[in-house]
Amino acid sequence: MAAALVLAARGRGLSAPNPNVGCVIVRQGRVIGRGWTQPGGRPHAEAMALDQAGAAAAGATLYTTLEPCAHRSARGPACSDLLVAAGIARVVTALRDPDPRTDGEGHARIAAAGIAVTNDVMPDEARRAMAGFLTRRAAGRPHVTLKLATSLDGCIALHSGASKWITGPAARAHGHLERARHEAILVGRATYDADAPRLDVRLAGLEGRSPRRLLMTRMDAPEGWEAVRGPAAIREIEGVDHLLVEGGAQTAAAFLRDDLVDRLLLYRAPILLGGRQAVGDLFLNIVDPAHGRWRLIDQRPLGSDRLEVYERARS
Amino acid sequence: MAAALVLAARGRGLSAPNPNVGCVIVRQGRVIGRGWTQPGGRPHAEAMALDQAGAAAAGATLYTTLEPCAHRSARGPACSDLLVAAGIARVVTALRDPDPRTDGEGHARIAAAGIAVTNDVMPDEARRAMAGFLTRRAAGRPHVTLKLATSLDGCIALHSGASKWITGPAARAHGHLERARHEAILVGRATYDADAPRLDVRLAGLEGRSPRRLLMTRMDAPEGWEAVRGPAAIREIEGVDHLLVEGGAQTAAAFLRDDLVDRLLLYRAPILLGGRQAVGDLFLNIVDPAHGRWRLIDQRPLGSDRLEVYERARS
Repeated sequence: MAAALVLAARGRGLSAPNPNVGCVIVRQGRVIGRGWTQPGGRPHAEAMALDQAGAAAAGATLYTTLEPCAHRSARGPACSDLLVAAGIARVVTALRDPDPRTDGEGHARIAAAGIAVTNDVMPDEARRAMAGFLTRRAAGRPHVTLKLATSLDGCIALHSGASKWITGPAARAHGHLERARHEAILVGRATYDADAPRLDVRLAGLEGRSPRRLLMTRMDAPEGWEAVRGPAAIREIEGVDHLLVEGGAQTAAAFLRDDLVDRLLLYRAPILLGGRQAVGDLFLNIVDPAHGRWRLIDQRPLGSDRLEVYERARS
Repeated sequence: MAAALVLAARGRGLSAPNPNVGCVIVRQGRVIGRGWTQPGGRPHAEAMALDQAGAAAAGATLYTTLEPCAHRSARGPACSDLLVAAGIARVVTALRDPDPRTDGEGHARIAAAGIAVTNDVMPDEARRAMAGFLTRRAAGRPHVTLKLATSLDGCIALHSGASKWITGPAARAHGHLERARHEAILVGRATYDADAPRLDVRLAGLEGRSPRRLLMTRMDAPEGWEAVRGPAAIREIEGVDHLLVEGGAQTAAAFLRDDLVDRLLLYRAPILLGGRQAVGDLFLNIVDPAHGRWRLIDQRPLGSDRLEVYERARS
């Protein structure tokens, strides 16, 4: 399943509105098929993996990060039918598919064919890997990541406005990689006016993965940008299941006040700046309600900086 | 030596103006004497350990965090003479004593008695353990630790002024333990007026270790407090080799602008506040000079918070 989750990550930011699924087929200890949802959403991960495995799929075990679909569409047959026809002996999945056309029906159809089904394997990791699709299904909006690159004292710039460079090359490269994992990046008007950011992916081989550029503004968007009226308007943006909010402090605060941030990417440089702070006023009067909302799920050094990844803990 | 360094920590904040030395005597794989500089500075660590070892010290190895002293004083004989007389066979030290009355003379006297001497063992750790004494000797001022307890976005309070509680019980208890390691704590006028902090050590068994309270102010100090005119005035404070600066943002900035912070204790809670920032204006116009000053030397979880300890990298 861990290998299937790695494959799932390949489709992230490319498969909307379909989930970015990963699939691995194993027979006698050998991987005979690997698949992930292709750009645009088809072929599905299972179809790709079954195609690779060919006749060897008979008697094999199929691992997939999401319940195989039960619905035929004009674009292809249902994966649950495909894997039954291929003679798969055992199916292991991480999550049930919340799509009402499948939602348990895929598992049922596979079990009815006499195939052993195990669900709920690495579900937390799968929820993270397919967060865009699942958030769209559950909340009717994109999954939102807020990126902050700060000094130890939480500054994103000096009072002079200077912000080049707080984090080092490794952290900035990681930030570009994260851009490629999102369909769109959003900044506020102040950041646009101050920095005119390109928001592109400046990594060799990933130049083609630069996401759409959104500007939070009540005015018209400049050329090459799309205007978004406010945080709540992100529900209306089509084709965006993963949204990266990159700045600045007022925009971050607006999304946090509306509780629309699901994931926090915090890049921290070992410096003190005493400058402009990362997050604008959250309109809190007491500290207590701020607790219990963020859970550290990953951290690593990036050069002399550190990355911490937090997840919004929703019960 | 690691064991001797642990003992050295016991005298921290209690031995000024003497160094807080730790000493262990080992014979045939067994510890036969342990010592650390006693409150007020006497007996010295080596004298205490030799006293414990008694006649068994003959032929043993003595580990000490600082070169044994070579100067007799009215308060006791020189440790280098004591250990020669006790028949110690080998001496291992971490650092040479910068006190001009010893400064190499201790090692020389021991070697002249035919005893094997090894210096420079765990010198970085020893510099940290005896930072107060060494900073006083090298820079003529106390070693200064700046404590910041912040949210992930670098806030120490809400805009409403509320700051209870950002960090949890484990981090606050650690902060009290750090207080006991300093002879004095300093806060600025704004923090005094807002919080009237007690700055005492509220840990069972350590209530007697509450440090002196300093207030940075141009006015008279309230009862139970001592007035300090500004960061540069800390050179004049007698009996304080370790100073803990606890708040607030303007006081932190004043010490940082004067480059008088040697160590940064950063307690971070996994919350976002969008409130008042931890560090006031440092008067920087470009980011670059902020880099290369701070080195992470320790980090640990404290409940759901994290502690990071940084050291000022001085070349």
